Amino acid sequence: HNQNFYTDTVFKSAIATLRLSLLHVWFKSAYFQRLKALTPEENTRSQHGLFFQDGQRRVDYVLTYSVKKSSGSHSTRQSVHLLTENVVTRSFRHGPQSGGEKLRAKQTQRTKDSSSEDQKAFRREEFEGKLRDMGLELEKDEDGKIPGVYFVKIHAPWNVLCREAEFMKLKMPTKKVYEVKQSNSIVEKISTLISKILEPLHPHVEEHQPKNVKHLSHTFSREKQHLKQFTSSFVSVQIVVNKGKTIYTTVSICVIKMIFYLFPRVFRKYFGEKIGLYFAWLGLYTQMLIPASLVGVIVFLYGCATVDDNIPSMEICHPRNNITMCPLCDRVCSYWKLSTACGTARASHLFDNPATVFFSIFMALWAAMFMEHWKRRQMRLNYEWDLTGFEDEEDHPRAEYEFKVMQKSLRKRQKSQDKVNTLYAIEKLTFQDRLPAYMTNIVMMLLMIGVTFAIVFGVILYRISTKAALHMSSSLITRNHVQLTVKTTAAIINLVVILILDEVYGAVARWLTVLEAPKTDKSFEERLIFKTFILKFVNAFAPIIYIAFFRGRLVGRPGSYLYVFDSYRMEECAHGGCLMELCIQLSITMLGKQLIQNNLFEIGIPKLKKLIRYIRSKQGAFQEEERQKKLTRYETDHFLEPFGGLTPEYMEMIIQFGFVTLFVASFPLAPLFALLNNIIEIRLDAKKFVTELRRPVAARAKDIGIWYNILRGVAKVAVIINAFVISFTSDFIPRMVYQYMYSPDGSMHGFVNHTLSSFNVSHFQDGKEPMDPSHFGYPVVICRYKDYREPPWSNTPYELSKEFWAVLAVRLAFVIVFQNVVMLMNDIVDWLIPDIPKDISLQIHKEKILLVELFMKEEQGKSYIIDSSTSTDGKENCSKHNNNSKVAPPRSRRHTNSTKSF
Amino acid sequence: HNQNFYTDTVFKSAIATLRLSLLHVWFKSAYFQRLKALTPEENTRSQHGLFFQDGQRRVDYVLTYSVKKSSGSHSTRQSVHLLTENVVTRSFRHGPQSGGEKLRAKQTQRTKDSSSEDQKAFRREEFEGKLRDMGLELEKDEDGKIPGVYFVKIHAPWNVLCREAEFMKLKMPTKKVYEVKQSNSIVEKISTLISKILEPLHPHVEEHQPKNVKHLSHTFSREKQHLKQFTSSFVSVQIVVNKGKTIYTTVSICVIKMIFYLFPRVFRKYFGEKIGLYFAWLGLYTQMLIPASLVGVIVFLYGCATVDDNIPSMEICHPRNNITMCPLCDRVCSYWKLSTACGTARASHLFDNPATVFFSIFMALWAAMFMEHWKRRQMRLNYEWDLTGFEDEEDHPRAEYEFKVMQKSLRKRQKSQDKVNTLYAIEKLTFQDRLPAYMTNIVMMLLMIGVTFAIVFGVILYRISTKAALHMSSSLITRNHVQLTVKTTAAIINLVVILILDEVYGAVARWLTVLEAPKTDKSFEERLIFKTFILKFVNAFAPIIYIAFFRGRLVGRPGSYLYVFDSYRMEECAHGGCLMELCIQLSITMLGKQLIQNNLFEIGIPKLKKLIRYIRSKQGAFQEEERQKKLTRYETDHFLEPFGGLTPEYMEMIIQFGFVTLFVASFPLAPLFALLNNIIEIRLDAKKFVTELRRPVAARAKDIGIWYNILRGVAKVAVIINAFVISFTSDFIPRMVYQYMYSPDGSMHGFVNHTLSSFNVSHFQDGKEPMDPSHFGYPVVICRYKDYREPPWSNTPYELSKEFWAVLAVRLAFVIVFQNVVMLMNDIVDWLIPDIPKDISLQIHKEKILLVELFMKEEQGKSYIIDSSTSTDGKENCSKHNNNSKVAPPRSRRHTNSTKSF
Repeated sequence: HNQNFYTDTVFKSAIATLRLSLLHVWFKSAYFQRLKALTPEENTRSQHGLFFQDGQRRVDYVLTYSVKKSSGSHSTRQSVHLLTENVVTRSFRHGPQSGGEKLRAKQTQRTKDSSSEDQKAFRREEFEGKLRDMGLELEKDEDGKIPGVYFVKIHAPWNVLCREAEFMKLKMPTKKVYEVKQSNSIVEKISTLISKILEPLHPHVEEHQPKNVKHLSHTFSREKQHLKQFTSSFVSVQIVVNKGKTIYTTVSICVIKMIFYLFPRVFRKYFGEKIGLYFAWLGLYTQMLIPASLVGVIVFLYGCATVDDNIPSMEICHPRNNITMCPLCDRVCSYWKLSTACGTARASHLFDNPATVFFSIFMALWAAMFMEHWKRRQMRLNYEWDLTGFEDEEDHPRAEYEFKVMQKSLRKRQKSQDKVNTLYAIEKLTFQDRLPAYMTNIVMMLLMIGVTFAIVFGVILYRISTKAALHMSSSLITRNHVQLTVKTTAAIINLVVILILDEVYGAVARWLTVLEAPKTDKSFEERLIFKTFILKFVNAFAPIIYIAFFRGRLVGRPGSYLYVFDSYRMEECAHGGCLMELCIQLSITMLGKQLIQNNLFEIGIPKLKKLIRYIRSKQGAFQEEERQKKLTRYETDHFLEPFGGLTPEYMEMIIQFGFVTLFVASFPLAPLFALLNNIIEIRLDAKKFVTELRRPVAARAKDIGIWYNILRGVAKVAVIINAFVISFTSDFIPRMVYQYMYSPDGSMHGFVNHTLSSFNVSHFQDGKEPMDPSHFGYPVVICRYKDYREPPWSNTPYELSKEFWAVLAVRLAFVIVFQNVVMLMNDIVDWLIPDIPKDISLQIHKEKILLVELFMKEEQGKSYIIDSSTSTDGKENCSKHNNNSKVAPPRSRRHTNSTKSF
Repeated sequence: HNQNFYTDTVFKSAIATLRLSLLHVWFKSAYFQRLKALTPEENTRSQHGLFFQDGQRRVDYVLTYSVKKSSGSHSTRQSVHLLTENVVTRSFRHGPQSGGEKLRAKQTQRTKDSSSEDQKAFRREEFEGKLRDMGLELEKDEDGKIPGVYFVKIHAPWNVLCREAEFMKLKMPTKKVYEVKQSNSIVEKISTLISKILEPLHPHVEEHQPKNVKHLSHTFSREKQHLKQFTSSFVSVQIVVNKGKTIYTTVSICVIKMIFYLFPRVFRKYFGEKIGLYFAWLGLYTQMLIPASLVGVIVFLYGCATVDDNIPSMEICHPRNNITMCPLCDRVCSYWKLSTACGTARASHLFDNPATVFFSIFMALWAAMFMEHWKRRQMRLNYEWDLTGFEDEEDHPRAEYEFKVMQKSLRKRQKSQDKVNTLYAIEKLTFQDRLPAYMTNIVMMLLMIGVTFAIVFGVILYRISTKAALHMSSSLITRNHVQLTVKTTAAIINLVVILILDEVYGAVARWLTVLEAPKTDKSFEERLIFKTFILKFVNAFAPIIYIAFFRGRLVGRPGSYLYVFDSYRMEECAHGGCLMELCIQLSITMLGKQLIQNNLFEIGIPKLKKLIRYIRSKQGAFQEEERQKKLTRYETDHFLEPFGGLTPEYMEMIIQFGFVTLFVASFPLAPLFALLNNIIEIRLDAKKFVTELRRPVAARAKDIGIWYNILRGVAKVAVIINAFVISFTSDFIPRMVYQYMYSPDGSMHGFVNHTLSSFNVSHFQDGKEPMDPSHFGYPVVICRYKDYREPPWSNTPYELSKEFWAVLAVRLAFVIVFQNVVMLMNDIVDWLIPDIPKDISLQIHKEKILLVELFMKEEQGKSYIIDSSTSTDGKENCSKHNNNSKVAPPRSRRHTNSTKSF
């Protein structure tokens, strides 16, 4: 039967989207698990509730509301939203938690519960009346199995669907089919080969329709039904009803915010284009991570392979180079030999070698390529999903906004109560009205960012003071493990703080956005995302930025160190640059964040919530067994967690994208870790969407919205940050400068000596010199420290030397060159890769021609009828029309004729 | 009568577009001049030819073709294109000059003229047949007054227009009118005030329609004519016929490339949206230049006002600072006193002061603002011109491209002649086929750029050698005017070379693009523009870039100067930096280019061509007087210059935009010059379009296409170039460094001394020392030169000093900070200014709601009819439809009914 045919083809196209990601096996199996898990009996049972009482009219949408019992033992349920094959429930949001209602609740605080219930019931009826006026058919579920919760089932008849489809300018596949030419380019061949290799990994979906055939799409029009011959099964499923919102917001504010959709069947059809786009984006991102992690691993291996050929670390490790270094802390620390830093020096070479420079350029280009590919993929999906020409649905003012406006006009009216007849039109909120909210926003954002910085500073203090304390410890073992202990605990503290603040910041951002009262849902979402992004981004990257650019740079020099609170010396980096520590911090933050947030928060918490909700409902008086059997599909899905939007999913991935691109110069393995995480993530997300959450309201979307801009922003910042990491954090530039400007034989020999300045120990400030001056058995006269400064015997001792300025100039020049070259290359990539894939643009072109031909044929058929039915000459008829151009076809007659046919 | 009413309202809206520019007085008067110049008789005469012989059907388009006389005395006319009220002529391009025809011509070289004429006549007839098949009506002009030129008049009947309007998804104003709310923002009030002040400058256009009322627009649909009640006058004029191209390219390649349009009446309507957008863009650009030139003048005046407080120039001018400078050339030049450079030093302060730093940041932001404003303006125009939702018309392959493809398949067929039955489908050109063309393109582009650089180098050589020669001259007067003579002549040579190369490069770019054979007209245009832009940009800016960044930097130092061809020393800048010379070069190039190219080329040459064409036609046997009288409108317009596209107009403005933004740090008056030029330019362009050129084919366009990207590119490059000009060309950074790092008292005193290094004259190379060592009456031991180098008495004499590296580091740091701050500010501007003006988005929103309401009313009216006419219950009827969803309205009956009405 026709429905079955439809399901398969649409499922195929949904899978085709996912196939791009190579990673959807899990998703598919989760989906089928769910389908198969239903035994025939269960299947019948789950079918229960899919139709109206007459067994004919399908339930397209379910509204839920709860009535508070006078006993008040049960808390009000809100936002009930069921996941079934074809039935979705959206509750009347009655709870005091809902924004608009909360405000209204304050006003009507004094009225009793019962009268408030009456009021609600009245509003509900008013709303349901509006729905009926629109042509929808409603049926109330009088004998619900869940106490206090009632359901209103809605059915949208055929003609309502057609009308809405026409309003929405929905594109429909027509019965006209044409052949899609397979392109023969090399790229295509390679991708075919790859997909053949990976075939065993893909789910087996039978293809009822040949792959290279496509239906012509055209904007739906009732008048043209005879012409277009739309495949009717598509129409019945794909049409989306979207009017409730319009009527609702203009009629009554606080009862419910409602959009209702008639849900199509699978995946994209099942979840809507918006969630489909998320999975497509995640798929492409993961796919793009494969080459990035490959190159990253090669770069890392190159570091490993060349570690023994690295002259600077060889020089450090060579026991003959007995360079005496200045002490690392005041008094308790003593002089130390450079050769003890051998291990760190060798390790830093893994991350600080010429290949990392190449890699960070590669990753900048990779990010640009990713953007471009996404644009193309989006274009392709838009075309395949018939979204071309779809304009964003107009956004209606939010209830909270309208309520504020109402309050404002109320206040105005009260002020001028004497003029009773003055009518105040509903105004908008001006800048003055919003000023307090804006100010709160700015202040709170700055405060939150300040808190982040304060915590970073706190961790620094912790590190400095603990290190000093442990150094003074009498136990030798403690003193030997100072570095390890301090670094590990500090990194863990950082991680924990980041995780906690992430949750706090999410809540703060939401609160601030509610305070701001943006006009539309779209702007609400965008503002919320923007704030959350800023806060979470700063939170995740502040400690890393500190390590990359500030640590070891604010140290001062022997004899005039920089002190915090007059007693703690600022920390230095281990010899070999801070790149090593940056790398450690990065990997701990990235891995920890991903493991804990993904697995614990994303999976654990929904399960827990489901359990709690289940246990709560169990407290009711019903027999569990009996109840379960009698429950309709929507009643069972009532216990699932409601869908909270895609923001957390995207946010997580964007922060990960930050880790992958921002500091990639110091951590070439980041793409690999991200890849591994995402392979799990994509499966977990799919499983969660299918089994743990109520079915989300399907939303149409052409693009990923503000996320694309944020991605672009991160990619832009990545270029400059990588430039600075390479030139300032790593030793790449000093090495180059030494090799080409100072080295006597053009080799790296002598580099270590060149980077160390000398210090005459007699110049130590009083009380700061080491307690054990002859640690090595002989009195130390000159100790060395890492800096470019004049020697003690020059005219200007300890001033910055010429080498310092030369190295600084080269570093800055490198930043300029790197940034501009990479930006230029990005622009070239942007320019070379067309935004619309060639085959798609060819198909669009072909479709247009075919449509015109179709119309022309229709036209000729018509004019033939004219010629035969009217006895006048066709040409004369035409010219007559032209000269008297106002003669329109006789309206009234045609009108009644065409309407009669309904 | 209705047409008149229409003309006025549309003209008003066209003028409203121009009003934005404040500058259209000339345009308006030119247009009216043309209208008024026609005396009543003339008017009747010019009306002659506007209708078919029956005097009823209007001529909508005119095709022209020429038949070669066997005598061969007259050359074939081609591309005839007339400018009349409503009649436009496009020739059958028969001439051998037309690209495709040329190729075909080569093949058919051997066939005789007469047979080729026959072939052409056959193709013509074939084509005309196709036009008739489409429903168009044709009439041939058998008794043309111009020998050898024939006209085919085309009339598009009403039903054809309707059909095409539907295919194009043309938006039409409906009769439904709604009120546009005037916004009360401060910006709006200011702009109202300004427009009131400037009222006398505007042309007086009577406003038949209240300003704050707008017609609802909706996509045209024949079926909905009864519903939408389109104002029919709009329909009859606005519809565009666009099918000829489709049919043409698939039928015959080389006879004609044709688009034919039914032309609307005035300005945007008269010239089409594409040209309308150009004038709107030019208007906005000129408008935006007003604040820029204001600030520029203020910055310049600040320089003038502070010239006497400038310590460095005071120090140079002070007679007591008798600093002896090293000679400026070998042997013949002698030592000189720094105080003689007083004039240049004072002059350079005009362009080299802190205000210029501010000004270049301002101009970078200005460019970003301009971009944003243009986006908004474009959006507004799209809305006002009902272009929202308009998708670019599909581009058909160019004739030249299809010809190449045909050649290729012909070659393949010849290769495998044995298999007679094999049919080769028309293939596309692969990369291999295009490789030779691509290679030629790259090589030629590099060669051309190389030529530009060679010429710049040649001018340098000219300057160096002339200077040396003049210095050796015995005449004192000559020697005194060396600088002036050399600079002036060199700048003029540069200008002349730029002007000549501009023309050459234009031709080369066209030739290269033809060679490349892009597939579509659009890509042809884009590639041509891109190449032309690259070449002209390099050409215009190469000498300026040399002066800004290389001149005076490749000099070497006393004792080891850098020599070109072993004999000429590289030129130095005058004391006070190269900024002064950069400024001179800039102003000469900019003014010269604008004056000569604008006035001479743009106005003079079309006039000349018109004259030539007129004289040529006079050679015919006709009596001039008599002929003039009898000529129809399109025959008179036959003598005008054909419209060659907007590329030269845009190109000129983009190069000017480059002058305004790229080196604005050195020349704050550039915006003022540009403004003055544009005020003339906008008038000249308008006059040219109305009176000198045949009426262009109106083209719909949503945006200015590739030009926007080029503008963005120039604005991006401007940021980095300005950063370099400020930090490297000007003395801003050295002054800052001196003041904050080296100055003993924090003032600028001693700066001049600090920038000069010392040279021991005994270190001159043999034969290079001045001939007159005791020029000042005493032997010079130490002379000074401008550089940061170690003194002769240091350990490393003449090496770059620490100051050099410090200044270099600060310079580079400034570049990084400047670039990133400006880019960040640009992004913020981009982000803060919404792309869609608020009032427009509100109006779009309002229109949508109104449309939905309109439909809903219609719907309810319908269902009322159903309820009353059918006795069954409405609801049951609906649900029946739903369950049996395939029941479509009875087709045949409705079909015949609706078609009968035609």
